[in-house]
Amino acid sequence: PEVSPSVEARVLVINTGGTIGMTYQDNVLRPEANAFVKALRKLPILHDEQYAEQTGLYDFCPQEQTLVLPLSKQNKRVVYTVLEYSPLLDSSNMTTDDWAKIGKDVERHYEKYDGFVILHGTDTMAYTASALSFMCEHLGKPIVLTGSQVPIFELRNDGRDNLLGALLIAGQFVIPEVCLYFHNKLYRGNRVTKVDSGSFNAFCSPNLPPLANAEVDIKINWDTVWRANSTMKFQVHTEMNRKVGLLRLFPGITTETVKAFLQPPMEGIVLETYGSGNAPNNRADLLEELRKATERGVIMVNCTQCLRGTVTVSYATGQALSDVGLIAGRDMTPEAALSKLSHVLAMRDLNTEDKRKMLSKNLRGEMIADFEGAKLSLRDS
Amino acid sequence: PEVSPSVEARVLVINTGGTIGMTYQDNVLRPEANAFVKALRKLPILHDEQYAEQTGLYDFCPQEQTLVLPLSKQNKRVVYTVLEYSPLLDSSNMTTDDWAKIGKDVERHYEKYDGFVILHGTDTMAYTASALSFMCEHLGKPIVLTGSQVPIFELRNDGRDNLLGALLIAGQFVIPEVCLYFHNKLYRGNRVTKVDSGSFNAFCSPNLPPLANAEVDIKINWDTVWRANSTMKFQVHTEMNRKVGLLRLFPGITTETVKAFLQPPMEGIVLETYGSGNAPNNRADLLEELRKATERGVIMVNCTQCLRGTVTVSYATGQALSDVGLIAGRDMTPEAALSKLSHVLAMRDLNTEDKRKMLSKNLRGEMIADFEGAKLSLRDS
Amino acid sequence: PEVSPSVEARVLVINTGGTIGMTYQDNVLRPEANAFVKALRKLPILHDEQYAEQTGLYDFCPQEQTLVLPLSKQNKRVVYTVLEYSPLLDSSNMTTDDWAKIGKDVERHYEKYDGFVILHGTDTMAYTASALSFMCEHLGKPIVLTGSQVPIFELRNDGRDNLLGALLIAGQFVIPEVCLYFHNKLYRGNRVTKVDSGSFNAFCSPNLPPLANAEVDIKINWDTVWRANSTMKFQVHTEMNRKVGLLRLFPGITTETVKAFLQPPMEGIVLETYGSGNAPNNRADLLEELRKATERGVIMVNCTQCLRGTVTVSYATGQALSDVGLIAGRDMTPEAALSKLSHVLAMRDLNTEDKRKMLSKNLRGEMIADFEGAKLSLRDS
Amino acid sequence: PEVSPSVEARVLVINTGGTIGMTYQDNVLRPEANAFVKALRKLPILHDEQYAEQTGLYDFCPQEQTLVLPLSKQNKRVVYTVLEYSPLLDSSNMTTDDWAKIGKDVERHYEKYDGFVILHGTDTMAYTASALSFMCEHLGKPIVLTGSQVPIFELRNDGRDNLLGALLIAGQFVIPEVCLYFHNKLYRGNRVTKVDSGSFNAFCSPNLPPLANAEVDIKINWDTVWRANSTMKFQVHTEMNRKVGLLRLFPGITTETVKAFLQPPMEGIVLETYGSGNAPNNRADLLEELRKATERGVIMVNCTQCLRGTVTVSYATGQALSDVGLIAGRDMTPEAALSKLSHVLAMRDLNTEDKRKMLSKNLRGEMIADFEGAKLSLRDS
Repeated sequence: PEVSPSVEARVLVINTGGTIGMTYQDNVLRPEANAFVKALRKLPILHDEQYAEQTGLYDFCPQEQTLVLPLSKQNKRVVYTVLEYSPLLDSSNMTTDDWAKIGKDVERHYEKYDGFVILHGTDTMAYTASALSFMCEHLGKPIVLTGSQVPIFELRNDGRDNLLGALLIAGQFVIPEVCLYFHNKLYRGNRVTKVDSGSFNAFCSPNLPPLANAEVDIKINWDTVWRANSTMKFQVHTEMNRKVGLLRLFPGITTETVKAFLQPPMEGIVLETYGSGNAPNNRADLLEELRKATERGVIMVNCTQCLRGTVTVSYATGQALSDVGLIAGRDMTPEAALSKLSHVLAMRDLNTEDKRKMLSKNLRGEMIADFEGAKLSLRDS
Repeated sequence: PEVSPSVEARVLVINTGGTIGMTYQDNVLRPEANAFVKALRKLPILHDEQYAEQTGLYDFCPQEQTLVLPLSKQNKRVVYTVLEYSPLLDSSNMTTDDWAKIGKDVERHYEKYDGFVILHGTDTMAYTASALSFMCEHLGKPIVLTGSQVPIFELRNDGRDNLLGALLIAGQFVIPEVCLYFHNKLYRGNRVTKVDSGSFNAFCSPNLPPLANAEVDIKINWDTVWRANSTMKFQVHTEMNRKVGLLRLFPGITTETVKAFLQPPMEGIVLETYGSGNAPNNRADLLEELRKATERGVIMVNCTQCLRGTVTVSYATGQALSDVGLIAGRDMTPEAALSKLSHVLAMRDLNTEDKRKMLSKNLRGEMIADFEGAKLSLRDS
Repeated sequence: PEVSPSVEARVLVINTGGTIGMTYQDNVLRPEANAFVKALRKLPILHDEQYAEQTGLYDFCPQEQTLVLPLSKQNKRVVYTVLEYSPLLDSSNMTTDDWAKIGKDVERHYEKYDGFVILHGTDTMAYTASALSFMCEHLGKPIVLTGSQVPIFELRNDGRDNLLGALLIAGQFVIPEVCLYFHNKLYRGNRVTKVDSGSFNAFCSPNLPPLANAEVDIKINWDTVWRANSTMKFQVHTEMNRKVGLLRLFPGITTETVKAFLQPPMEGIVLETYGSGNAPNNRADLLEELRKATERGVIMVNCTQCLRGTVTVSYATGQALSDVGLIAGRDMTPEAALSKLSHVLAMRDLNTEDKRKMLSKNLRGEMIADFEGAKLSLRDS
Repeated sequence: PEVSPSVEARVLVINTGGTIGMTYQDNVLRPEANAFVKALRKLPILHDEQYAEQTGLYDFCPQEQTLVLPLSKQNKRVVYTVLEYSPLLDSSNMTTDDWAKIGKDVERHYEKYDGFVILHGTDTMAYTASALSFMCEHLGKPIVLTGSQVPIFELRNDGRDNLLGALLIAGQFVIPEVCLYFHNKLYRGNRVTKVDSGSFNAFCSPNLPPLANAEVDIKINWDTVWRANSTMKFQVHTEMNRKVGLLRLFPGITTETVKAFLQPPMEGIVLETYGSGNAPNNRADLLEELRKATERGVIMVNCTQCLRGTVTVSYATGQALSDVGLIAGRDMTPEAALSKLSHVLAMRDLNTEDKRKMLSKNLRGEMIADFEGAKLSLRDS
């Protein structure tokens, strides 16, 4: 049958690597170069060759990189071009430079596409999603990270559905955020954390409901989608300060450990504290090390070890940390806090106090804003 | 009406402090000495004064410390004696010495009681529960930790129900484990982690179902309850090596950070890795630091950052850590891994290799045993 | 210590009976008259006798019926008066007359109280909550139904917390709805259904999020709270047409069964259909019986057997029911649909067509409104 | 590359119809004949044509009906033959005759296949699964029902994964039960109910954990898998008594309604009662109708309206039903209770008392057995 040309959406897929495209070599999963697009081309769910040929799609787009989805329920064709990184990376090997590269690639192709999908390993996907959210200022198009727990080359896998859902959302909905799509849910990128290494339902967004649920229908929770309130030009800030660290408190942690961790060249740390942001307040030596670090200009953000919850100051033990200079990270994930810190510390024209202020502000929907907390209790009689 | 004497169970309650007994002072929650038992005495749910007087309970037990529950559904009276620590501790201030003190107090009173309840702040309760599980060898009676998110002195609180449930279980069921009871569920102590700082449902046991559910009825999952297979005498090992640490990997972590963290006097660390136990395998410098640490005799255990899941070796990036000497922590929580490490490193008559072997073994039900994994796949045709 | 008078809120508690106040007699749970207030008076959590006496509370309120909560976090005193029904009813025995009595009692005392709590057995609580929501027009104060799975007289029970939470919400928040409070959650009354007979978490509101969560803090979801958009006077319509029924489809249901069920004097039925509102479309005889009933003036509402979901018309088998005259019940629970039907059929000045129209409308937030469905898909680009 | 022959498993797929194979015609979903296998043949995930040709698969199996999966993780090839019913049925149109036809088809092909997959609409799948479980006696091979919420012909759908998972389980695991596979979970067929009409996660098994979870790995819960304890020959009993009905109690139900529903020729009903099996005990007229029905030989089974829970006799209102002759349905779903009733009433050589006894017994794992309840409380000290 003849295929008539449809309204088309253009999506750039940046394939950085990850399980989704891995194959078994010597009984260990490894990424394989130039194999992914070839595999997709054979899956009718993810590519409609007949449409591509009949509409002359390859006249304008490089054939070896371009694919097109079958007609969507919204009556659109999502045409997608895959940009594969070389070498392909296991996400455990991802660095801040790789984040910058992704950011720059989105910036370079920003005008030509309606949305972006980043294929990425699940292991550090929450870190990359957080970092990209801070790198991207005045974003007006969706950037959707996805990947899978099982390679798309295996019989039972979650890669097909994750890729398909990410493409449909990136191509068809104006959600101007860095997002993460996994197992039928779309999350804000700087709100997620990987919570399960053995289930298809690998991620959760502990302190924010999903932006969308893609079950029988795709339902967007528009009230939750972030609006930048800005018409300024999109730009990408790729500089990240790597002199940062994550320190998790535990009972019996020695002052030597804290001191060793805070020693120069460390410039900022996320302290993973207990409960609502608590630390020992009877450990004068330990608190003294934190105070000294603050005085040296080290910036420290207080985040909780708990999956869910917010750092507040209602216990004596929480007050102590505030007194020695820690910034309340409210309900940020450690992943978001760390990349925000890395991002803010890299800003050249800010002094320490400015940086501390910026860290206290909600920049990209990564933490609960003051007014939201207020809203919860104000309306009672 | 006359009250007839019932079958009685004896429980020792060790009140270490924590939110359950805190009061607001200057708008900040603080523990208050000698207030807890007085408060309980006024709550008919938690104390039956009439029974105490009519049966002459105070003839044998110190009145200011002894309370008795109303008759239980199982037709028993749980008589409990409260041993309050001085000073009362916020659990953020808890140290390894405090763990030892609790262990010693259980040992001292072991013969006189049917079970033990430890009142404890929620912030580090999972750490204490893990530590106590390793300290207690050949345990034959229940030790149940509990506490609350809201003080028992406030109007709406979870302290009453948590204490009541813990007492009923410690006094009436032979569950020879260190457990944690919270929000109608009994968990194995070395399997829990605090996951929510704002909900009554604060804990979860990500890789093991609860030992019991206390809803309309108390239902024990006997198949999950740990059996020591031993008739040896109960003993408490209180020595803990504090030269241990928790290091969480993140993309961009510098080799300097790792090196600083691993420097002497550090003797053991839990490395919180990605996914199924992965770390960068393209960071020769970083892996070299880990290898050097192993060679110096530092023992490192590989645990996942994910809430749920097991450390396996199915990715190239996971293999790298095994190669430089890390021990697979399987599905242990970081809390369990850290206290197990601290416990094993303190054993004087073991050499490094023995300690590594012991860390690889399932000692107190803290991790999945090999045979369990096997069982899952063996029976298919 | 002296107790100073506080801002007081007045709540009327109508105790209709139910498990919350039952005792065991001959090994079977039965309600006991005049026992409930006496029991509450002894629970310091639910009554502060000292405050009552020092502030002369009993000078104005009958002592044997009036209690006062300890000071709430919101710095208020909830003074509550218990009106006990005689006889106390097991909720299985509740009839439409009892609903009317409750409605009339609320109306009679409407001006004197800030809120109302209805104690009720759990078995038919969802039916009563639905019925009251339709009976009460232009409601401006909270009516909160609650009860418990285990009697308040037993050692471990959920009655204390349920009653306490219901009182605090009814007395302190302006939620002008008939609600149901259970296990730390406040639901819209005509959205709930009992889903578990053995857990404290007995109810759920399958198609609407809770109106409030009462965990460590009471958080009201104000966006979900129903606003009547009306300043008209509160009134109660107690007439209910009892010639209604619930018929659940199942494969193999005979036409005789349907015919017998629909025979006069039946005037309205809720048909519990499959999935999204489907029924056999190849059973001409069965459909003919439904058509004949419609022609006789019987009004039939189509609700799904599924716990969650909405009746739509996207299958051929769903279309068939629409063709023979059934009204789409959208996402109403069977409990809500039945009481709405009973309520609308009792309206004397409406003809059949008017009644059908009224049943298609969202009257009290009991079903999704058209615009909401629209909102879900409209904003995509 | 050459494909070497693998160990093969044979599965018979009986395609009865349902959403999985539907297409839109005039904006309404309808089944389309002879389209399903053709569609599967084009999906590389569900058919490996190269293997089929190279191994001469079509020499022995009819080409137009036979497909073969790619190599599974367990190193097997699942070869499956599709038997398509004509006409294809919307599951809303399924009757007891259709159940019998499925049962007979399984019986006819029983020896030639390792397992069976029944494709079926989701609307009445739980009824069919229950009915088949009773029809099949001494079953030694898996019968797995599945289907989907979205047709396999649409872009995003759950049909591919459901079919794939069902085939892998039916072909590779010895689970001698009638099961239902949906959204990565395998349930016992007579324990499921459809709970969501708009989510991929459409089914649940409220009173029994899943038999298997198919996430990253397929994990069978062997302890839950039913063992018939029998080496007797498999046989299928297709007779079902259709003179049965489901009657749901609600407050205000009139005696006329009950009487009309119970009138001859009705021979058995499932009464959906409140909570733990309660009904009004103050409605002498209504109870009298039930008693009369019992005396006429009508058999009535008491099941709860609650999704989760068990019918017990601990309330006065529950006792009343037992007194008028109802059989406690314990934790059976209404779907299971109805088909069990239909199955038992069709047994010709049993008298009424025998039938009542048989209904009280656990026949196919459809309800909790006595000893299980006992086990829960016995081991406490």
